[in-house]
Amino acid sequence: MQTVAEPIQRLIDALVRLPGIGPKSASRLAFYLLRSSADQVQELAGAIGELQSNIVYCSRCQNLTQTDPCPICSDPGRDANIVCVVEEPLDVVAIERTGVFHGTYHVLHGVINPVEGIGPEDLRIDALLARQKKESFTEVLIATNPNMEGEATAMYLARLLHPSGVRVTRLARGLPVGGDLEYADEVTLSRALEGRRDI
Amino acid sequence: MQTVAEPIQRLIDALVRLPGIGPKSASRLAFYLLRSSADQVQELAGAIGELQSNIVYCSRCQNLTQTDPCPICSDPGRDANIVCVVEEPLDVVAIERTGVFHGTYHVLHGVINPVEGIGPEDLRIDALLARQKKESFTEVLIATNPNMEGEATAMYLARLLHPSGVRVTRLARGLPVGGDLEYADEVTLSRALEGRRDI
Repeated sequence: MQTVAEPIQRLIDALVRLPGIGPKSASRLAFYLLRSSADQVQELAGAIGELQSNIVYCSRCQNLTQTDPCPICSDPGRDANIVCVVEEPLDVVAIERTGVFHGTYHVLHGVINPVEGIGPEDLRIDALLARQKKESFTEVLIATNPNMEGEATAMYLARLLHPSGVRVTRLARGLPVGGDLEYADEVTLSRALEGRRDI
Repeated sequence: MQTVAEPIQRLIDALVRLPGIGPKSASRLAFYLLRSSADQVQELAGAIGELQSNIVYCSRCQNLTQTDPCPICSDPGRDANIVCVVEEPLDVVAIERTGVFHGTYHVLHGVINPVEGIGPEDLRIDALLARQKKESFTEVLIATNPNMEGEATAMYLARLLHPSGVRVTRLARGLPVGGDLEYADEVTLSRALEGRRDI
């Protein structure tokens, strides 16, 4: 027998399909929304409903945007000589938050991952190479994640880009700020030792 | 400068207001929805948008329902002599899942919590007393949570109900099934000892 009213069950079912939300959190969220103000609930429903309708890919950097080219690509103050290659739009947000990068971006929308059947042709790599020919930037900073797939993708891109003579760089590896040497894994610590700098 | 397109930021802002969802999960959910099928996204938007419009309180047990009386209250197979008092609609779901309770419910929609300014008048206690007069059931099983607020509410209800001569019971306390004696807290272990049963 059904013990939860159908509209609640329907929302729980829809929420459970989202990543990181299990049956318990889904129930809690549903009952929370039930008790929330109608305004808040309709705002959330509207934000979800209209999400996909106004978003396009920037034809230059492939980031998700409402305007093409995106605000970063159309900003004349950005240094067109250096392009930072990232996996996802969220990585652009993370790097922008630092405030220290003033170049442009290129969003791959994934990494090469043979286990999940994602090859170079599934990523925005062709667009990067086409862009390099057209814009002839001087440096490509590959900011894919420092894990196996991110490293493999960085190596793959470096091999494609090197013949053109462009400088290809990678984010530094080392101890995270605020981290504890005692708990650092061996690989990170090795990289931190190799990459030691004069002070 | 805004680095996330406005519709995405709007959704992130709406998601962050939900309990248990921080800025990072909100971003991840937003970008997940952006990549999801339009059908799935519209289903979620619809489920949220229509959630509040079709839900009423059952006039008998105060549970949330689409029909009044709710499916449990209108089921002639349920034992009307025993009423299980719970804090929230989700608690009804949890008890129904066990399949061992065949009485009816009464949902308080909260517990007495002076710290948060929730008094007996904010709960569906009047409805329970009115119901008791009308239905003259023989047992009230108080299944509020085994924490301070739940216990206080149970004691308060017991004091109100006892004069009528109705039997007032409480869920058993003891070691959780699958639990480990070594890690049981002292209070739980004391209750388990006090409540020991012949086998």
